[in-house]
Amino acid sequence: MPHDYKEAALEYHATPTAGKIAIQLTKPCLSQHDLALAYTPGVAEPVRAIATDPAAAYKYTAKGNLVAVITDGTAVLGLGNTGALASKPVMEGKAVLFKRFADIDVFDIEVDAEKCDEFVETVVRISPTFGGINLEDIAAPRCFEIEQQLRERLNIPVFHDDQHGTAIIIAAGLLNALELQGKTLESARITCLGAGAAAIASMKLLLSLGAQRENLLMVDRNGVIHTDRNDLNKYKQPFAIDTEKRTLLDAMTDADVLIGVSGPNLVSEEMLLAMAPRPVLFALSNPDPEISPELARTVRDDLIIATGRSDYPNQVNNVLGFPFIFRGALDVHAQTINREMEIAAVHALRALAHEPIPDEVLKAYEVEQMTFGPDYIIPTPLDPRLMAWIPPAVAKAAVESGAAQSAYPDNYPACPV
Amino acid sequence: MPHDYKEAALEYHATPTAGKIAIQLTKPCLSQHDLALAYTPGVAEPVRAIATDPAAAYKYTAKGNLVAVITDGTAVLGLGNTGALASKPVMEGKAVLFKRFADIDVFDIEVDAEKCDEFVETVVRISPTFGGINLEDIAAPRCFEIEQQLRERLNIPVFHDDQHGTAIIIAAGLLNALELQGKTLESARITCLGAGAAAIASMKLLLSLGAQRENLLMVDRNGVIHTDRNDLNKYKQPFAIDTEKRTLLDAMTDADVLIGVSGPNLVSEEMLLAMAPRPVLFALSNPDPEISPELARTVRDDLIIATGRSDYPNQVNNVLGFPFIFRGALDVHAQTINREMEIAAVHALRALAHEPIPDEVLKAYEVEQMTFGPDYIIPTPLDPRLMAWIPPAVAKAAVESGAAQSAYPDNYPACPV
Repeated sequence: MPHDYKEAALEYHATPTAGKIAIQLTKPCLSQHDLALAYTPGVAEPVRAIATDPAAAYKYTAKGNLVAVITDGTAVLGLGNTGALASKPVMEGKAVLFKRFADIDVFDIEVDAEKCDEFVETVVRISPTFGGINLEDIAAPRCFEIEQQLRERLNIPVFHDDQHGTAIIIAAGLLNALELQGKTLESARITCLGAGAAAIASMKLLLSLGAQRENLLMVDRNGVIHTDRNDLNKYKQPFAIDTEKRTLLDAMTDADVLIGVSGPNLVSEEMLLAMAPRPVLFALSNPDPEISPELARTVRDDLIIATGRSDYPNQVNNVLGFPFIFRGALDVHAQTINREMEIAAVHALRALAHEPIPDEVLKAYEVEQMTFGPDYIIPTPLDPRLMAWIPPAVAKAAVESGAAQSAYPDNYPACPV
Repeated sequence: MPHDYKEAALEYHATPTAGKIAIQLTKPCLSQHDLALAYTPGVAEPVRAIATDPAAAYKYTAKGNLVAVITDGTAVLGLGNTGALASKPVMEGKAVLFKRFADIDVFDIEVDAEKCDEFVETVVRISPTFGGINLEDIAAPRCFEIEQQLRERLNIPVFHDDQHGTAIIIAAGLLNALELQGKTLESARITCLGAGAAAIASMKLLLSLGAQRENLLMVDRNGVIHTDRNDLNKYKQPFAIDTEKRTLLDAMTDADVLIGVSGPNLVSEEMLLAMAPRPVLFALSNPDPEISPELARTVRDDLIIATGRSDYPNQVNNVLGFPFIFRGALDVHAQTINREMEIAAVHALRALAHEPIPDEVLKAYEVEQMTFGPDYIIPTPLDPRLMAWIPPAVAKAAVESGAAQSAYPDNYPACPV
């Protein structure tokens, strides 16, 4: 990032007021009469109603549209364990995205907790406040344990975006890329470079979508994850394969797909050349990809490439998912975000990329044309149709899978997928 | 409350959206450029700044203007232990008051915790999020333990409004009432009916302001608190007096002041008649006072009476205090709200009641005139001068007592008291 950009970012956060979010009042609050409804004595009525029927909290309070973005600050951006306090700008930023894209209100909560159990207990105790929980920037493998415990204990959606949000966008983009390359997920040989939260969640989702276990190789910093290794935690073990392959070059040889969720410049020209014909490369390390798209293009011209960056085509950006997935889940009072709802989001995103693009989107990106193809396998974040496509798909899947506590909303369009 | 008023309160909370608060974005967030500043990659800069210097959180995040209104739902309004969830309308209502009166942002947090320790741990762990903690509607005596532990462990203001907010307004009104009756706090015989959180905090504050220990009688549901009783918890014990008095009538005989923070209709005509000449009666039970003001007036005409209700003169309303006290505390990054700051708020409130009242206040209350006197001993909640009087007094006291981490704000007027 250039120096003046850093200054601009600090300036943006500091002026005219500190931070990026504030509270707004949604009801008239000027007169004594208003205040007598908002607070005592009037407020006793909704209290009584909720004490009688807890579901009334969705009618009389902000709970139903309120998501907690919660972190322990152990894996903040690419900066590592910054601690709870220093993560606050990121959590407020997430709040901005939830509000901007799906009109969901967020309280960002930075939790100072050493142990998983402490974190879990804290979230459980404050959970009556919220309609959903978005876990954020929690280090692996503790994030798996935390998410599993919270899902078991809470009856509101708990979603670790770094895992499942990322997985959903990757899956949607990959399905489209394989289609363009004339391949299928069922037969594709897939190598995953990286074995953290996003990697493991992505591979699990791809398996749910039809990828074959025996076609899938995972590579961590010690090389290919195979059955003879004894340094694997319980989250990596299910991906261990009985294979002779050891190096990343071994793993990329004849692969149809590389999903890189690791670090900068780990993929060489030689590795890229060793891949199968018409390969798909997701180089998602940010800001510096596993291999630069320019270099990759000079090495092969039969490649489809996606990155995590907004200045290249095919950006894998979580904002394509979480605001709309929560929107759909909240609107049917879903008790969880289950695999069916994730898969519905994948197919909605995948299908939307096939649609002709409205002029306002072209204008927002200052381009002449975007059409489904190697440089457009996935919708763009400023596409207003995301709101019409993803929430209905997620809500419908919630209703059909039994996760919803209320019916498909009257004010929703028909689900487009 | 009339039936249609109950319906109006429910309607107010349910439409057009559920609840009373939402998030607003305080920075431009439309374009890709905006989002690159608000979230990745730009957001990494304030994260790094705060990781290096925690105080930078006040510059780059909403922390410095953000108060948690936190409850366990054990003493909600007069409704008792409703549980965490059902208390949410009240906590959102408190958020409305903070924002409306002092432009302070509030996250309402409803905590599901059985034990004091669990509650305390939860608040400590989420405290990096906030610039201050307002405890609300927590039952006595647990509220004392919780507040004390949190004050010891946190270096941001922790304020239990039901205790200290109430005490501050009572003290300001009482000082003015005594002045009008030609009496002093130092010599007044004071009976406190009630021995809960508000009662104990109020009596402690009055002692700090000059009331004499031997002139003070506290009465709980078992009668006068005296040294021969063996049913007193450690919070009531310091108020036990070696006396022959046993009943409320005993305690009110020859008293100059009754502070009622108990329940409806506990004070009889006989008790009122037994008080000293020119007495002061604070009948704060809500919505039904310890004795109705109409009845009290027919019994004696040398009385000054205050209630908790907006439809009588001299309303003791906490909204006169907490928004402005926190405003002053936050604006100098106070680490606590100490006794000096509370007393500064008392004197600012007391002095403001002596000032001529602006026309806009008369208009807001649809009255011809209000002047310092028996029916106006305390400012009214819609008085815009509260913001110019209380925060400067509190901020100045914070600076002078060493509680402030930054200087008296440049944009503040001179402290009026």
